[in-house]
Amino acid sequence: MSSNLPVNANRIAEDIEALAAITEPGHPWTRRAFSPLFHEGRTYLEARMKAAGLETRIDAAGNLIGRRTGRKPWLGTIMLGSHSDTVPDGGRFDGIAGVIAALEVARALGDQTIELDHDLEIVDFLAEEVSIFGVSCIGSRAMTGQLPESWLSRVSGDLDLAGGIAQVGGEPGVLAQQKRPDIAGFLELHIEQGPVLEAEREDIGIVTAIAGITRVEIAVEGRADHAGTTPMDRRADALVAASQLVLDIRNAAAELARTPGHFAATVGEFRIEPNAANVVPSKVVLLIDGRAEIRADMEAFCRWLDGHVEKLATAYGVRIEAPNRVSDNLPTPGDAGLLSTLEAACERVGAKHRRMASGAGHDTAWIAKLAPAAMIFVPCRAGRSHCPDEWADNDDIALGAAVLFEAVREMDTD
Amino acid sequence: MSSNLPVNANRIAEDIEALAAITEPGHPWTRRAFSPLFHEGRTYLEARMKAAGLETRIDAAGNLIGRRTGRKPWLGTIMLGSHSDTVPDGGRFDGIAGVIAALEVARALGDQTIELDHDLEIVDFLAEEVSIFGVSCIGSRAMTGQLPESWLSRVSGDLDLAGGIAQVGGEPGVLAQQKRPDIAGFLELHIEQGPVLEAEREDIGIVTAIAGITRVEIAVEGRADHAGTTPMDRRADALVAASQLVLDIRNAAAELARTPGHFAATVGEFRIEPNAANVVPSKVVLLIDGRAEIRADMEAFCRWLDGHVEKLATAYGVRIEAPNRVSDNLPTPGDAGLLSTLEAACERVGAKHRRMASGAGHDTAWIAKLAPAAMIFVPCRAGRSHCPDEWADNDDIALGAAVLFEAVREMDTD
Ligand SMILES: NC(=O)NCCC(=O)O
Ligand SMILES: NC(=O)NCCC(=O)O
Repeated sequence: MSSNLPVNANRIAEDIEALAAITEPGHPWTRRAFSPLFHEGRTYLEARMKAAGLETRIDAAGNLIGRRTGRKPWLGTIMLGSHSDTVPDGGRFDGIAGVIAALEVARALGDQTIELDHDLEIVDFLAEEVSIFGVSCIGSRAMTGQLPESWLSRVSGDLDLAGGIAQVGGEPGVLAQQKRPDIAGFLELHIEQGPVLEAEREDIGIVTAIAGITRVEIAVEGRADHAGTTPMDRRADALVAASQLVLDIRNAAAELARTPGHFAATVGEFRIEPNAANVVPSKVVLLIDGRAEIRADMEAFCRWLDGHVEKLATAYGVRIEAPNRVSDNLPTPGDAGLLSTLEAACERVGAKHRRMASGAGHDTAWIAKLAPAAMIFVPCRAGRSHCPDEWADNDDIALGAAVLFEAVREMDTD
Repeated sequence: MSSNLPVNANRIAEDIEALAAITEPGHPWTRRAFSPLFHEGRTYLEARMKAAGLETRIDAAGNLIGRRTGRKPWLGTIMLGSHSDTVPDGGRFDGIAGVIAALEVARALGDQTIELDHDLEIVDFLAEEVSIFGVSCIGSRAMTGQLPESWLSRVSGDLDLAGGIAQVGGEPGVLAQQKRPDIAGFLELHIEQGPVLEAEREDIGIVTAIAGITRVEIAVEGRADHAGTTPMDRRADALVAASQLVLDIRNAAAELARTPGHFAATVGEFRIEPNAANVVPSKVVLLIDGRAEIRADMEAFCRWLDGHVEKLATAYGVRIEAPNRVSDNLPTPGDAGLLSTLEAACERVGAKHRRMASGAGHDTAWIAKLAPAAMIFVPCRAGRSHCPDEWADNDDIALGAAVLFEAVREMDTD
């Protein structure tokens, strides 16, 4: 397949292999932002950008950028990219596949001596994953001028975030002026991190929207009774009540998922107290991670939840405080023009494509606050991600890179 | 009330106050076995035993014993007692009420210059609660010759259990010969640690049996998928399956509790993995604490559980290994003769009494392997125990001590 593509699949494979080798020994694949390994990965990327004829720099936010000047720079910058950091014990493709695919587009343009009117930038955003500072999407947030000033003093060990940004070559003092005015359009390729494309034998997902992420904390408070002596009908067992809540949340989410628009809700954090063998649990604190492509779904879910916990509290004789929305982000639709451009690009390279939402958060959601932005997914095996068995076939990544290549050419003619 | 009793309620109150004062500052009421505070408590108890005319010693197992010689020592020893150690942040009555009540019986016999035919021993068993060595009922187990040799090398910090027993004055080297051949009968007074006596306005519970304690561990294994991207209908969520299991266990236990004989089952320990906000839980390990007065109930419960987890695993697409009985103790019936003796004693002092099981484990369950043994419960407020708000009225304890007094006199005539 690759021989017909406007990009070179072998080069992509070579770079992905090279980055995979830059990992904590015994912890494949770990290359956390701000670590020495992260610097090593960027040193490799920078060299490859230079070899592709790109002019490299680190912006004030600590993003690594490779630039190819266009004939009419006043048209603005077409930007492609993703991130090179990983979660601990993560995968070989999450993030880095998008950086390498973007780089390959620049190389392919060079190979074919294609000059663009627009400037083109390939970007490796700083710290997309939740970093040692407890926050994510640092580079892409900063590029929109929306990195909260207060975050700069978050610490991890001896380092604060300002120091971390300075260490990677950024300038934390001038972040406030980082809002980029020149981006004509942004595209990101990413592995799907879900099972849909593989199951439906599609090559490319055109991402209609990046789901909003809403986190809701709920505390269920019962009574710590002696497990041996307290009759079953005289208990206020927080774990029993919370278990019912977990099932009800799953069912409510499954119902919303059957209506149009991606919806998911997951109880991922769940702690019980006192967590002792012979004590009836007195307290459960759980955290719901909700994802909605359609904002009204999330509002319906939260409304349902507020009413439901009251009923549960009565039914199980426990206290449940009003659910606490600890964070709440709106869905981010992909730019309609870019979605059409991407579809046309898929057709041009013969990629089977479908529209779908992204359940996961991405740098694209930040850049979309600033400029037309969209993203594509390539399939990954069994939807596995953020774990060592994450896998994407190189041909699928190369086909995605080819879609980016065609889309960039089309964006440049606008 | 107390003026008519053969025991002195004020002395009981005074001793319970004195012991309550021997607690970790800021952590009422904490007097863990092997701690300096535990030694301090025993120093007080020993002085009070001596003041009551008892001859004190520490046996090889580290039990503190006060002895009153009888006229016909060849008849054997009537033993009364409980334990002076507490759980961390425990209560003022659990254990110590039984030691003080026993001591008061000896004092009351002395006051009334009553000589017994049998020897009488008041015992403070070493480390009834789960101790720093992770095991419970050390002294009472050892008195039956059933403390596993291997336990002596269990460590906590710099100390092993053998060293701990030596520190309190025991002789860990001769534990194997500790099986006491001379106990004619044993009685223990304890707070109920449950809400039944208070709710039913009874003074004394005559304990028909100490429930067997069975601990069952179950591991539910699902798949750690991305919480954002994995459709609701493609998950193997270990927490969802485990939540259903918690509810089913509760319902099965409640049903068995409605048949004759005490039954309870509690999921008290529950840990999820990876416990991360945006990851579908891959694993839950839970521990069931089951209590059965009637062994057939526990067998029925475990049979049901074995079959049920298989069905759940299929229904929820997870793997559940066969439930693992990590520990399993049979119920211990109270000695039938002593139960009648105790009932007669209740009648004599005008105490309203009922037969009931003990859902909690006690030293009595060990001594019963060796000699006729039984116990009585006194009410405690709202069933609270193992926590600072544990409370028992002094008059109730005094009434219980009076029941012991009458029972001892009756046992002595046999
Ligand atoms: N893409 C991705 O995994 N982002 C992490 C944030 C999230 O979606 O949970
Ligand atoms: N009496 C008491 O609380 N014993 C502790 C062991 C148990 O029953 O859980």
